[in-house]
Amino acid sequence: MEEETGALPAKNDFSSWFNEVLWRAEVMDVRYPVKGLYVWFPHGFAIRKHVYERLREIMDRDHQETLFPLLIPEHEFMKEAEHIKGFEEEVYWVTHGGKNQLDVPLALRPTSETAIYPMYALWVRSHADLPLKMYQVVNTFRYETKHTRPLIRLREITSFKEAHTVHATWEEAESQVRAAIEWYIEFYTGLCVPVIVSRRPDWDKFPGADYTVAVDTIMPDGRALQIGTVHHLGDHFSQTFGITYEDDKGVQRYAQQTCYGISERCIAALISLHGDDHGLVLPSSVAPVQVVIVPILIGKRRAEVNTAAEMMEQVLRAAGIRVKRDIREIRPGAKYYHWEMRGVPIRLEVGPRDIDAGVVSAVTRTGDRSTIPRGDLVPGVQALLGQVTASIKKRATDEIRSRITVAGNVDDVVLAVQTGIAVVPWCGERRCAELLEEKSGGSILGMYVRSELVEGIDGVCPVCGQKGCCTLIGRTF
Amino acid sequence: MEEETGALPAKNDFSSWFNEVLWRAEVMDVRYPVKGLYVWFPHGFAIRKHVYERLREIMDRDHQETLFPLLIPEHEFMKEAEHIKGFEEEVYWVTHGGKNQLDVPLALRPTSETAIYPMYALWVRSHADLPLKMYQVVNTFRYETKHTRPLIRLREITSFKEAHTVHATWEEAESQVRAAIEWYIEFYTGLCVPVIVSRRPDWDKFPGADYTVAVDTIMPDGRALQIGTVHHLGDHFSQTFGITYEDDKGVQRYAQQTCYGISERCIAALISLHGDDHGLVLPSSVAPVQVVIVPILIGKRRAEVNTAAEMMEQVLRAAGIRVKRDIREIRPGAKYYHWEMRGVPIRLEVGPRDIDAGVVSAVTRTGDRSTIPRGDLVPGVQALLGQVTASIKKRATDEIRSRITVAGNVDDVVLAVQTGIAVVPWCGERRCAELLEEKSGGSILGMYVRSELVEGIDGVCPVCGQKGCCTLIGRTF
Repeated sequence: MEEETGALPAKNDFSSWFNEVLWRAEVMDVRYPVKGLYVWFPHGFAIRKHVYERLREIMDRDHQETLFPLLIPEHEFMKEAEHIKGFEEEVYWVTHGGKNQLDVPLALRPTSETAIYPMYALWVRSHADLPLKMYQVVNTFRYETKHTRPLIRLREITSFKEAHTVHATWEEAESQVRAAIEWYIEFYTGLCVPVIVSRRPDWDKFPGADYTVAVDTIMPDGRALQIGTVHHLGDHFSQTFGITYEDDKGVQRYAQQTCYGISERCIAALISLHGDDHGLVLPSSVAPVQVVIVPILIGKRRAEVNTAAEMMEQVLRAAGIRVKRDIREIRPGAKYYHWEMRGVPIRLEVGPRDIDAGVVSAVTRTGDRSTIPRGDLVPGVQALLGQVTASIKKRATDEIRSRITVAGNVDDVVLAVQTGIAVVPWCGERRCAELLEEKSGGSILGMYVRSELVEGIDGVCPVCGQKGCCTLIGRTF
Repeated sequence: MEEETGALPAKNDFSSWFNEVLWRAEVMDVRYPVKGLYVWFPHGFAIRKHVYERLREIMDRDHQETLFPLLIPEHEFMKEAEHIKGFEEEVYWVTHGGKNQLDVPLALRPTSETAIYPMYALWVRSHADLPLKMYQVVNTFRYETKHTRPLIRLREITSFKEAHTVHATWEEAESQVRAAIEWYIEFYTGLCVPVIVSRRPDWDKFPGADYTVAVDTIMPDGRALQIGTVHHLGDHFSQTFGITYEDDKGVQRYAQQTCYGISERCIAALISLHGDDHGLVLPSSVAPVQVVIVPILIGKRRAEVNTAAEMMEQVLRAAGIRVKRDIREIRPGAKYYHWEMRGVPIRLEVGPRDIDAGVVSAVTRTGDRSTIPRGDLVPGVQALLGQVTASIKKRATDEIRSRITVAGNVDDVVLAVQTGIAVVPWCGERRCAELLEEKSGGSILGMYVRSELVEGIDGVCPVCGQKGCCTLIGRTF
C-alpha cells in the first residue's frame, strides 16, 4: 500500500480529520463494499489489541471471560417486551441456511442478554451460585439506518465487551453497578480519556433496565460520545427468563442482574481526543510502537550509525519497550511523517554527531526535543514516555474542561451546547427537558453527575423555577 | 453450578466420554437452544485463550493480525464459481434488517476469501507491496445438516484462525505453503498432538485451490480429524477479484495466493488425545491452572498448614507458574476429583506431616506421586511440569502410532481402517480409490505423506497393480 503524504485536514474540521486520519494512520479502511462495515488495518488492530488487553486486565479481577453464540433464536429474542421494543428496528435476521428457509429465524445479537440469560437460568440454582460474573468480547450487529461512521456508528460492532452479572439482592446488584463505574473510570484514565458519569433520564435507559448510568466524553466538535454504559436490570430479565435461586431458607427467589458494556468507541475517543494536525497521538500504554529509532545515515559512517541504532533497539527491547527501528531506504523526513501519523510517542534519532557526543536525540510526539546520554537510554526513554502520557492527559483534560459550562438560564444553555455541554439544575420534569432540548438542539445526557470536571450544582430549573439537580445537556453522536 | 460427581463414561466409549467430559470439566455447555451452537464455559474459554495465544505467537512472526467484517454481500460471495459450488449449500443468509428486506442479501462468512480479496485488490498495486501476509481469528458459520458436535462440527465456528497471503510468483506462494505446514507442526507439537501431513486428493481440495495440504490427527475412536489445512490458491481468486501488481518491468500480473486455517478442532484434538477416564489431561503450556495446592487440614494445625499453603502459592506465582490454592470447605477427595477432571498437571498437597518433614507431596495428572523439598519448590515443580508434558506426548504418540498400519492388499486396508488409518501405495486413479473406499468404509485422506509416524512406502496399488505412492485411508469426522 503506497503511502499518501501531504497534510491532513486540520483537526478543527473534525469530521474530515477523523475520516482522513483513520485512513492515513492505517487504523480502518472504509472501502469495504457494505455500508457501516469497516476493515481493521494491522496498525489499527494493534491499537485495538493493546486497548482491549487493558480492559481485560481490569475485567479479569472480578469476572470470568466466556463466549456465547452470535445467533439468537427468534423465540428467545422476543421474550422480553421492553427489550424487543428497543431493538426490533435494528436487528439483522438470518432466514436461510443454504437454499432452505430456516424453521426459526435467527437474530444476529445486537447485545447478548437474550443469548446469555437462558443459560444463566440453567446455571443458577442456589444462593451458593451467586454472585455470577462473566464477560465476553464479541462482534454485535445493528441495522443502523442513520449515517454510519467507523468506530462510532457501525453495523458490525467488532469489539463489544459486555459483562453480565447475577446477584441475590437488588442492593448487591447496585454495588456491582458502582464497582463497574469505577472500573470504567480506571480504564479510561489509562487511555488519558476524561469522562463524565451520569444517570440517563428514564426515557433513555437501556430497554429492560431499572436504570442506566452512562460514561460520556466530549469530542472535538463539542458533541458528547457515549463510551460506556452500566445497567441495573433489577429482576426484569430474571422474571422473563426464569433465573431463580433458592435462598438460605429454601425459598425460590428471582435473581437481580446488571450488565455493562464498552465498544470500540473507546478507540474513537482515544484517537479523537489526542490526535492533532499531524495524525494520531497515543499514550504509551496502548501505542503498538512506543519508540521508533531513525538512524541518520550521512557520508562514510553508515555502518557505525546502523550498529548504534541496532544496539539501542536491543537495549530498549530487553527493557520491555515496544521499539521499532526504521531502516527503510527513504529520507528521514518521510520516516518522521510516517511515525508521527501513526502516533508513536517517542522518536529517537542517532547520527554521527550524536555518536560523537555520546547521546541520542529524542523528539516526543507532543513536541519536546531533548537529548539522552546513551548510558541512560532506558531510564531516559521511560521518563520521556511518562512525560508524553502526562502531557496528553493534561491537554485532553484542559480541552474537555473548556467545553463544559454551568448554565443558569435557557440562553446560556443554548450558547453552551453550541461548543460543548451545559450543566443545568433541571427539575426532572419531561416537559422542561423537551423545551431545553428543543431550544438548544441538545439532549439531556444525564443527572446525578459524577466527574472531576463538573462541579455539582444546585439551583432552580431554568424553565419552571422548581428546585433542580445537576444535569448535563449536549449534542450527541 | 453444582458439581456432578461420580465416574465419567470410560474413554473407550469415546463418543459418550467426549460429550460428558466437555460438560463435567466445564469446557462447553451444549444446552444452547440452537442446534450446532455451544457456549464456552470459563474453564474451556481459558484453555482456548492459552491455545490461541500460542498460535498467535507463531503467526505474529510472519504475519500481521487484522480483522475483516463478518457479512459478505451476495455479489462478492458469488464471484468465484468453484468457491460457490463448495459453499452454497452451507451458507447462512441475512435477508432482513429490522422489518425491511435488504436490497443485497448478506452471507455470514463460511471462510473469508470473498471478504478479504476485494480489499487485497485495492491494497496490492506493485511488486513492492508483496508479499502481503495477514491473519485473523474470527467466528465463521456453516449451515451443517450432518450431526453436529461441540468443537468438531459446528454451525458457529467460534475460533477460526485464517491466514491469507499474496505473492508475486507461484513458487513464492509454494514456499509459503511449506512454511505454513512447518508452523502448524510446531503449533501441534506444543500441544503434544501428533499430526500427519498429506496432500488431499484433487476431488477433496479447497474449492478454488490449486491444491490442499491437510494436517490430520487420529482420534481415540480411530477416525481421522482434520485439524488444519493449507491451500495454494494459484491465481484463481486473483483473477476473479482483480488482484494484480505491476512487476519491476512495468507489466501488470495476477498475484499468486495462499490461505491456511486452524479452528477450535485443535482443542477437540487436545482434549480427546490426552484425556482419560478421570477427565482432561492438559500439557502445562496450555493448562489454565498448572498447579493446584490442596491444604490438608487436620486437627489443631490448620493455621500452620494454611500459612504454608499460602506461602507456596506466592512463591510459585512469583516464578510465573499459574497456581490455584483450593481453600473451599469441602473434603480433599472432592477437590482432587474437581481438579483432575479439569486437567491440572500437578496437585500439591501440604499437611502437618509434610511440614514436619520439610516437604510437599506432589501428584501429577499422569499418575506419578513424589515429594519435593520445600526449599526446592520452584525447580521441583518446573521439572515435574516438564515430566508431565513428556509423558503426555509419549502416550499420545504411542497411541497414534498403534493406529497406523501399512497395508499391502485390500483386506489389510479394510482391517486397518476399522481401528485407524491404512498406509497404502495407491496409484492415483479415482476408480481404484473408489473401490478402496467402498470396501473399507474409509476415505482417501491424502498422498505425499509427511509425518514422523508414517514411513514412506513405495509399492503397487492393491487394486490395479500399477506403481503407487504412499497414501492414507481412514474414516473421518
